[in-house]
Amino acid sequence: MARVAVRDPARARGVTFPAGVMTHDAASVVADPAVDVVVEVIGGIEPARTLILDALKAGKPVVSANKELIANFGSELFAAAGQAGVDLLFEAAVGGGIPLIRPLRESLAGERIRRVMGIVNGTTNFILTRMSEEGTSYADALAEAKSLGYAERDPTADVEGFDAGAKAAILASIAFGVDVVAGDVYREGIATVTVDDIAFADRMGYVVKLLAVAERVSDDAVAVRVHPAMLPRTHPLASVRDSFNAVFIEGEAVGELMLYGRGAGGMPTASAVLGDLVDAAHNFRAGGAGRAPSPGTATISPIEELLSAYYLNIEVLDRPGVLAAVAAVFGTHGVSIQSMNQDGLGDEARIVFITHTARERDMQATMNDLRDLAAVERVCSLVRVMGAD
Amino acid sequence: MARVAVRDPARARGVTFPAGVMTHDAASVVADPAVDVVVEVIGGIEPARTLILDALKAGKPVVSANKELIANFGSELFAAAGQAGVDLLFEAAVGGGIPLIRPLRESLAGERIRRVMGIVNGTTNFILTRMSEEGTSYADALAEAKSLGYAERDPTADVEGFDAGAKAAILASIAFGVDVVAGDVYREGIATVTVDDIAFADRMGYVVKLLAVAERVSDDAVAVRVHPAMLPRTHPLASVRDSFNAVFIEGEAVGELMLYGRGAGGMPTASAVLGDLVDAAHNFRAGGAGRAPSPGTATISPIEELLSAYYLNIEVLDRPGVLAAVAAVFGTHGVSIQSMNQDGLGDEARIVFITHTARERDMQATMNDLRDLAAVERVCSLVRVMGAD
Repeated sequence: MARVAVRDPARARGVTFPAGVMTHDAASVVADPAVDVVVEVIGGIEPARTLILDALKAGKPVVSANKELIANFGSELFAAAGQAGVDLLFEAAVGGGIPLIRPLRESLAGERIRRVMGIVNGTTNFILTRMSEEGTSYADALAEAKSLGYAERDPTADVEGFDAGAKAAILASIAFGVDVVAGDVYREGIATVTVDDIAFADRMGYVVKLLAVAERVSDDAVAVRVHPAMLPRTHPLASVRDSFNAVFIEGEAVGELMLYGRGAGGMPTASAVLGDLVDAAHNFRAGGAGRAPSPGTATISPIEELLSAYYLNIEVLDRPGVLAAVAAVFGTHGVSIQSMNQDGLGDEARIVFITHTARERDMQATMNDLRDLAAVERVCSLVRVMGAD
Repeated sequence: MARVAVRDPARARGVTFPAGVMTHDAASVVADPAVDVVVEVIGGIEPARTLILDALKAGKPVVSANKELIANFGSELFAAAGQAGVDLLFEAAVGGGIPLIRPLRESLAGERIRRVMGIVNGTTNFILTRMSEEGTSYADALAEAKSLGYAERDPTADVEGFDAGAKAAILASIAFGVDVVAGDVYREGIATVTVDDIAFADRMGYVVKLLAVAERVSDDAVAVRVHPAMLPRTHPLASVRDSFNAVFIEGEAVGELMLYGRGAGGMPTASAVLGDLVDAAHNFRAGGAGRAPSPGTATISPIEELLSAYYLNIEVLDRPGVLAAVAAVFGTHGVSIQSMNQDGLGDEARIVFITHTARERDMQATMNDLRDLAAVERVCSLVRVMGAD
């Protein structure tokens, strides 16, 4: 290692470098002719973006763990790497130490991928696991995640799905060569998922997970989204517990694959960075470079076009004729009901529906009309049902 | 594609190649100057070995799906590839379409791997799944596997663990750089596993899987083996059902990883071969080569040295004093009992033990002495218990 740039070179670190190695001037490290390969673990957009672009332009391969940067400026950085003919590797940006980016870029180079869906946020998976296995409320599970250091003091980025959304954008760009940034990803978090929903799901043989999904919907369109989803209990992703991550890949020839492991943490991230560094150094010495993602021309399909089964939970007045009125609303929008379960709640009743595959737009219209029915007290929650196709 | 060598070029195949492309003379394809990269999917040792060595010596990268050849002549082939400075890629040789070899060689290049253990034979996993979930006997489950085309007419290679043993040798050589061939692998099959054992395991929270295990036991020794094992129900490998394969990797920095998918079949294998071919072509054009496994100096640790917990199932005469005599045998050999369960069987009783971690040699001595006890009718089965550490 030639040079290390840090915010405060004077801080004690347990290791001592020779004089001149530590600096707070990152640009001087990138420009140093003795530096062949640049590793960026700063995070955030700037100065990381400028430093990486400068390194690539100078013909230096770059290893980055920067999810936010790749998810927002990936195509600019991939183009710069391609132009310079050097590597830009970022295995640690999604799924920590799990080999994901390299298998998608290299092992599956001959594969037509249909869908990539994953549990890519450990905090929300920990919370959902507690809610599911212990019946803990969302608020209590979040508090436990905070006390264990799994959740930040402000948990918005995790629980509202922003972190998973950025990772979905990266996975989509690698799997489908589509130019998608974090802001393009449709996003719902887990704050509205209740212990009741999870219990209903369990009764019907499902578990609730926050999924990042990227799927090919036609030859020239890809859908990218993050939302809670119900998965059959026998689905491989259903047994991914606690803060573990996993990505499930469906390809036309390879069938179903799953890659599982620790999605975060200093050591797993360091392992991924080191693997990339060995690769970059090998390629650099051999005078070649890995393959940069080639920009594709597919467009992003809007959420309204989604075809999915749905779980819907509503509270109604327990009166004759109510069920017929509710069922009529589904019928009007062409949404077909697969199963229905009604429980009394005193003067009210709770009805839980699972639909057959329907168009999101029609399901949303159904929900809007249900809210307008006098006998419907509350439309509680809508969860997409996946993994049964 | 320049040339294709097949046994019978005249056989109808659904695709028609231009004249001169199909031949039955494989050596002429390898020698053809128009052929840059050789793909070998013949299987078996010869002529595959000679053809691959000739190709490598001629500076041509080789993609192979040949488990048997890599497991028996891996070090010779790796050395030839290293000397020629070209790729020898064999992702399809273990785990079909699952990216295993490339992640182990590249993504985990910076990782100190502790253990690799996997379900690498789909036939036996299908049989054990049926026995476990439906209570089907071994014989009936095997018959079902045959009728579905999962098992060969002669199922020896699968059920006796030879197939898994060859894959264990390949995984050990990649993960630990140890020079191990298929014949070095300690091997037990699943033919002795009974529905009773699986039911006992289930009661205690375990599932039975046929595992291929390669683990570092010291700085200069590696253990490589295949045998049925009990895994806690919450272990990620426990939920790998039917004919699916998965490999669980434990590394010092990365923690726990699992790679899951279809371990066999024409299409998944083709996907892996195609991924390797793209890689080999990329490296060949760039003038470089991937990294060949470097031969290590670690030795193979004999099975007698294994440290493991054990499940033991014995039938005894139901008389006073028998349990004390049996327990004394365990004590003599320093094997400590973790739990014990006795069921009446008329005049006899069945006793099921789970031991604390013990040395294999001591466990075998315990079994031998138990067989000599007059009150012990039968020592039925010994299954190693893993995944709880």
